Amino acid sequence: MENIIQQHAILLKDKVRMEAYKKAIFSSVKEGDTVFDIGGGLGILSFLALKAGASHVHVVEVEPGTWTLLRLVAKHNGLAEKMTFHKGLSTKIRLKKRVDLIVSELFGNLCLNENLLPVLIDARKRLLKNGGSIIPSGMKVFFAPCENRDWEFTTTALHNLDGFDLLPDLPDIDVGTPSMIIKNADLLSEPRVFIDIDIIKARSETAANLVTFNVSRDGLLSGFASWFEARLTGKISFSTSPNDLTTHWKQGFLPLRTPQKVKAGQKIIFELEFSPDPSGLNSIMGYHFEVK
Amino acid sequence: MENIIQQHAILLKDKVRMEAYKKAIFSSVKEGDTVFDIGGGLGILSFLALKAGASHVHVVEVEPGTWTLLRLVAKHNGLAEKMTFHKGLSTKIRLKKRVDLIVSELFGNLCLNENLLPVLIDARKRLLKNGGSIIPSGMKVFFAPCENRDWEFTTTALHNLDGFDLLPDLPDIDVGTPSMIIKNADLLSEPRVFIDIDIIKARSETAANLVTFNVSRDGLLSGFASWFEARLTGKISFSTSPNDLTTHWKQGFLPLRTPQKVKAGQKIIFELEFSPDPSGLNSIMGYHFEVK
Repeated sequence: MENIIQQHAILLKDKVRMEAYKKAIFSSVKEGDTVFDIGGGLGILSFLALKAGASHVHVVEVEPGTWTLLRLVAKHNGLAEKMTFHKGLSTKIRLKKRVDLIVSELFGNLCLNENLLPVLIDARKRLLKNGGSIIPSGMKVFFAPCENRDWEFTTTALHNLDGFDLLPDLPDIDVGTPSMIIKNADLLSEPRVFIDIDIIKARSETAANLVTFNVSRDGLLSGFASWFEARLTGKISFSTSPNDLTTHWKQGFLPLRTPQKVKAGQKIIFELEFSPDPSGLNSIMGYHFEVK
Repeated sequence: MENIIQQHAILLKDKVRMEAYKKAIFSSVKEGDTVFDIGGGLGILSFLALKAGASHVHVVEVEPGTWTLLRLVAKHNGLAEKMTFHKGLSTKIRLKKRVDLIVSELFGNLCLNENLLPVLIDARKRLLKNGGSIIPSGMKVFFAPCENRDWEFTTTALHNLDGFDLLPDLPDIDVGTPSMIIKNADLLSEPRVFIDIDIIKARSETAANLVTFNVSRDGLLSGFASWFEARLTGKISFSTSPNDLTTHWKQGFLPLRTPQKVKAGQKIIFELEFSPDPSGLNSIMGYHFEVK
């Protein structure tokens, strides 16, 4: 059981995330800028924007407990007078004037699975000045088929518990995509770029693609590993790849309902789509794969 | 990010928990018994009760996604015909006939913090036959003042993040009680029994007590560690004490908003109360302490 402090501490103690955002904010904010912070949490990105010279920050937070805490933390740090605290989804927010900069950290472990794309496109269209900036400005998402012994260990335990199978193949149950450490050695082929998005130009709220993997060795296909490069602004970026420092996202893992043996030389055709969820908090994810 | 399968796997792979419940169910169920399983999850306690000879199990689950999964898992294991699936809170459930046995695993990391006491008393009064059994039949809760370097490390990081204090003393914010490993060496006094409850006799939905700790060494009081002994039935029990095998509960930890230095020979007076929460899912917890 994690409490609210632990949840935020995990984000705030992630140095890869924090250092990249801090650099991006300090290199983007100009004296007197107005800023819109989407998904403010305890407010650190808003506070950094004010420290960097912003004159006012609009911050929106959807989780009621966090929203309450955010206001108290801002007051405690003497910054509440330069902030407007919006409660709810950013897509419902109206501002009287467009802002100079949008800043947001809505990355899920599969990059796009927390509705990042529809949220940022909506904010850019409705709330950003012509020529304004967005942090992040873009993102590149990778997938690769992989083995995952930790996952197989978890599911095997559930498949036979005192003679009961607690994890049958249930086509209509989405079990979610856990964050797990995936090593390069676990991958069953070279990774592929699933999608590369420029937020300033993006038009579609849906991200979909079909990629083909060439299986490089025999193994048990447990699912698909995923990571992303987040381009915050200019040359400032970070990555959640297995080759880089581990972040709190670790790697994303899309588990198969039934693992499947694959052999070197086979091809895996993998199709995936992220589309907006009416709740506005997550993305709807559909995928399909075939081993040939 | 844990997914629904990982969440249940954590419970189902906890051998201390599972072995004790399995023994208790097999030693309690008589051929043809009817059973009420409160907070069924994926159904394992219901399935064990049926395997042990129960003729019918009523199971109630409040989380909608888990309730859906529970029904599918029961069907997959060929047991759905001997089960009635109730959705929601047990306190809202009416049964046409009282049952022979109530079984439930609603232990929080502070034992009573997931509304266990009001739920079991209500079920005993309204839904259990005269002379019927309840698993768990009782519980004993312990507290001790402790140091907690992991917690201090987490909060220190938040107290000074780029010059901002993200964790001010906020009197009206309940940060929750994380599960953490607390070692005997971390304790600042002998533990005290906070409360010892017999579920068959219990009348009060509120659990409250005042205990005094004699500080045994100098140290930094980070908060109060807690663990419990769960008496399932007869002599079958388990414990979450630092002296026993680690369970998924680890130890409970009630953090202080501000850590405080204490010295050997001082006394700590500690008052705590758990009372029913109107939502029915958690307990309302109030506490107060004083170092003398």
